[in-house]
Amino acid sequence: MKIDFLTLFPEMFEGVLGSSIVQKAQDKDAVRFRVVNFRAFSDNKHQTVDDYPYGGGAGMVLKPQPVFDAVEKLTAEAEGSPRIILVCPQGERYTQQKAEELAQEEHLMFICGHYEGYDERIREHLSTDEISIGDFVLTGGELPAMMIADSVVRLLPGVLGKEESHLEDSFSTGLLEHPHYTRPADYKGLKVPDVLTSGNHAKIKEWRRKESLRRTFLRRPDLLENYPLSEEERKWISEWKNR
Amino acid sequence: MKIDFLTLFPEMFEGVLGSSIVQKAQDKDAVRFRVVNFRAFSDNKHQTVDDYPYGGGAGMVLKPQPVFDAVEKLTAEAEGSPRIILVCPQGERYTQQKAEELAQEEHLMFICGHYEGYDERIREHLSTDEISIGDFVLTGGELPAMMIADSVVRLLPGVLGKEESHLEDSFSTGLLEHPHYTRPADYKGLKVPDVLTSGNHAKIKEWRRKESLRRTFLRRPDLLENYPLSEEERKWISEWKNR
Repeated sequence: MKIDFLTLFPEMFEGVLGSSIVQKAQDKDAVRFRVVNFRAFSDNKHQTVDDYPYGGGAGMVLKPQPVFDAVEKLTAEAEGSPRIILVCPQGERYTQQKAEELAQEEHLMFICGHYEGYDERIREHLSTDEISIGDFVLTGGELPAMMIADSVVRLLPGVLGKEESHLEDSFSTGLLEHPHYTRPADYKGLKVPDVLTSGNHAKIKEWRRKESLRRTFLRRPDLLENYPLSEEERKWISEWKNR
Repeated sequence: MKIDFLTLFPEMFEGVLGSSIVQKAQDKDAVRFRVVNFRAFSDNKHQTVDDYPYGGGAGMVLKPQPVFDAVEKLTAEAEGSPRIILVCPQGERYTQQKAEELAQEEHLMFICGHYEGYDERIREHLSTDEISIGDFVLTGGELPAMMIADSVVRLLPGVLGKEESHLEDSFSTGLLEHPHYTRPADYKGLKVPDVLTSGNHAKIKEWRRKESLRRTFLRRPDLLENYPLSEEERKWISEWKNR
């Protein structure tokens, strides 16, 4: 997979793309990143990329020309059609399902805005996807773009070792994860549940299934709306409801 | 405000914390960041911070000791009580309201997990807040922690100039933002709406209010549930519904 980031702040990417599993994915040739400063595509001698909004108001708006030219050049060089992703609060809410969908692509291109916003023509005529990371406001699209890339890259074949399997992730099963515990069994009086040190694998499995369901029921009951509950799981839930 | 990041990947932070408005906020003394590698707090000679999960299974779990010791040392040195924030998919969904709440604090401390998860005792007995950035899985808590910090820092007094006002942000008004346009008025045949170049400020204001409402109605009708609609706004919506 190829992932391009179009940004005015290329220095933001270095540390993140060179760390942890994202670096490992590059070492394994599962992904190749490019960070492109679209200021270089500005057609005026001052290399400006933004201008005052038509109609007045505070804030600067990203001009169409540098962004269109950058995307068109990178697209012309590419094989196939990249997904051109705009990160913005008005977009479709990002989810694990979208991560799985994007992980099937050959080429992703993120347009990272900054300042007050994008010229609307970028949104309407250039991007293929508008993604929102949530109902809050950031100074730019760089962090969400890196986050989306991180969530996609870890799904690519061969990137996660068996030590870091994603098959039991939250949201991959449809439920939140059960609690995890590791050594010591007693940390300053705080103890690990007995069942986990019992060696009884059937009981451990049941405890985990139940705790995963309990956490989802308590914290994210909305996830249960589309979850196929077994007879036993229904019984557990009605017990919790009656407490 | 002080913001501490506890992480095993301190190199991820440099580029981001040194860029754009986040750097400007540090220059203006509105915020002071510390990036602390909690591996340094491990009490064993191999400096391990993770271990196999009790009860078996794939993945490694962050041990309580290094995280507790790091948080306790940093808290003991601090004035007042920091908010100790765990970023995890099970947490409360992050919103602009939470950003505004956190912007009132003196001291935030982010625990950035990695690997399969945290020992449950960290969640239960150490953190004051569990925040989720959305229903998707990442390789670590670093990117969400930086993102939360970014959204909080830009709300601190004096950080944004009037050029970057946050008063008309999406979510601050309760609606999505209206479209923005800047020069040129005609970009390869794609034109700016006439009203914006008319010079009629009352009409521009109305157009923006209407487009902001239209975009919210089309993309995020859930935001309208708690929005106090005027008589005129109700009329617009019923027209759109009847199309």
